[in-house]
Amino acid sequence: MTERQKVLLTEVALRDGSHALSHQYTVQQVEKIAKGLNEAKVPYIEVAHGDGLAGSSLQYGRSKTNEFELIEAAVAVTDFSKVAVLLIPGIGTVKELKQAQQLGAKMARIATHVTEADVSAQHIYAAKELGMETVGFLMMSHMAEPEKIVEQAKLMESYGADIVYVVDSAGALLPNQVTTRIKAMKETIGVEIGFHAHNNLSLAMANTLAAIEAGATRIDGSVRCLGAGAGNTQTEVLVGVLDRMGIETGVDFYKMMDLAENVVAPILPVPQEITKNSLVLGYAGVYSSFALHAQRAAEKFNLDARDILIELGNRKVVGGQEDMIVDVAAELAKVKTFV
Amino acid sequence: MTERQKVLLTEVALRDGSHALSHQYTVQQVEKIAKGLNEAKVPYIEVAHGDGLAGSSLQYGRSKTNEFELIEAAVAVTDFSKVAVLLIPGIGTVKELKQAQQLGAKMARIATHVTEADVSAQHIYAAKELGMETVGFLMMSHMAEPEKIVEQAKLMESYGADIVYVVDSAGALLPNQVTTRIKAMKETIGVEIGFHAHNNLSLAMANTLAAIEAGATRIDGSVRCLGAGAGNTQTEVLVGVLDRMGIETGVDFYKMMDLAENVVAPILPVPQEITKNSLVLGYAGVYSSFALHAQRAAEKFNLDARDILIELGNRKVVGGQEDMIVDVAAELAKVKTFV
Repeated sequence: MTERQKVLLTEVALRDGSHALSHQYTVQQVEKIAKGLNEAKVPYIEVAHGDGLAGSSLQYGRSKTNEFELIEAAVAVTDFSKVAVLLIPGIGTVKELKQAQQLGAKMARIATHVTEADVSAQHIYAAKELGMETVGFLMMSHMAEPEKIVEQAKLMESYGADIVYVVDSAGALLPNQVTTRIKAMKETIGVEIGFHAHNNLSLAMANTLAAIEAGATRIDGSVRCLGAGAGNTQTEVLVGVLDRMGIETGVDFYKMMDLAENVVAPILPVPQEITKNSLVLGYAGVYSSFALHAQRAAEKFNLDARDILIELGNRKVVGGQEDMIVDVAAELAKVKTFV
Repeated sequence: MTERQKVLLTEVALRDGSHALSHQYTVQQVEKIAKGLNEAKVPYIEVAHGDGLAGSSLQYGRSKTNEFELIEAAVAVTDFSKVAVLLIPGIGTVKELKQAQQLGAKMARIATHVTEADVSAQHIYAAKELGMETVGFLMMSHMAEPEKIVEQAKLMESYGADIVYVVDSAGALLPNQVTTRIKAMKETIGVEIGFHAHNNLSLAMANTLAAIEAGATRIDGSVRCLGAGAGNTQTEVLVGVLDRMGIETGVDFYKMMDLAENVVAPILPVPQEITKNSLVLGYAGVYSSFALHAQRAAEKFNLDARDILIELGNRKVVGGQEDMIVDVAAELAKVKTFV
């Protein structure tokens, strides 16, 4: 008899999911959810502002509760699950990472744009130095071809990352694109591979299964789908599906369902659906922060904001290039005049 | 240059979706939705009670509006889209089919349990006689192996069906199970193949793509996911995904998004999520009508209703065998006593 295939899940409802609650988690809510996840034997629970440590700001949205209080609360109620934190260099620093580690966080996930792994070097070194299990988190992975992703993953591996994730931040990847990316990594890097999906194109589960089939062994999920955009792969559903496929997660299916229904659903202000906004972002493959800029430019130039977003996606415009949004709108308006 | 692959969509929000509104559609709502679908160039729009023609009853839920008024309303506002009706022999009869055809319905979908295609014979003959495009609709297709499905599809083909659908009524199929079923049909039957998904395991989109890859050319979707259980494949998302994959639907992506957001979402009493109930039904692979019976039996025998539903699924209990639910519960309670 061959051993059953295994994957290790990381629950992100208390980090990515904080977007769905406009970062309004209370200590009591985090305690309750982390306790439930611990009882269900979820291996990792990520806790931080939606944009990572130190994300609480006017720009990214202010947290109701200091994230270190939330981390502390999660650590206090978990004896099985390990608490993870996300750090985006430029938003958070090594200082916050140290603080999280001192409070009991055991895993550091260092996140960069898919082509900018080099900025993660000092943070990965620091996390390893602190004795944390360390993940390199390649965001917006739909914007780079497999060869580029391999190159960037190798950098993170060389800095000491124990795991490298392909992160579909915009929920824009198609299953075959997930397969080619994970396969290319599997063939060339020695560390474990992870996958983080978003459901903007209703493909979170499909992409997650494609990633596992191609060799990913670390998978992110969010209970009741709590996450940015249309949310992530729904954890309690994933546990059931993997069980049906004979893949082991070690997570208690019934306890996850009960947690989703009785604890998480009641605190969600609005259920996670695939709305027009999240669908357009996934289809265009752009940052969610572009939506508002595009809407303003659309009004100025009498355009459909969707045309602007899709054109920005075609041109692979990245965060920090928001100035281009108005330029693109102006160009589209010009073309429209001549049609 | 090779011709682009094409699929023809059938929108089921005005039939399967009626479950999500407890069959409370008004003429005005149907007019508005059908008009939007027609403008977006959706090829087929199914209109009927959620359980098909004549489904309005104490047992299946009473419709607010007579379904023939809804069919008439949809026909009146469509000059591109064709109106389809669903008929489950035993619930509806040839009489209702004739009436629908006289009101302008152009497609008849005759639905049976996956192992009972023989009961569709007279209804398929009648539909063809009436000059309707005719679909054989094999429900609960997860309960039969590919060879059995092929046998049943061949029967429907022999009666005159133009298309045969694999229908994942319980949202229980995994992508590889969809692939084997559709491939087996593709190799043996001459008519077009269709696929109808439910999203109980968050696999509606994954399964739909697997079906298309295996050769299905007719696909069901429901705008904003409106449908029984966790709903169907979300049509406006599917249009975007297929476009990204280079597969043609002929449907206007923007118009579908606007219809979903501006017309359909506001009339939904509760957004379509994957709740504990729909997840359990998909995982167990049982009829949604079993849920209430299982709940009652669970209370009587002090069990978890989920254990009963999963055991019913293992035993492949079908509709009409509701008596077995109490027997199964009694057995489980006995086993529990001895543990």
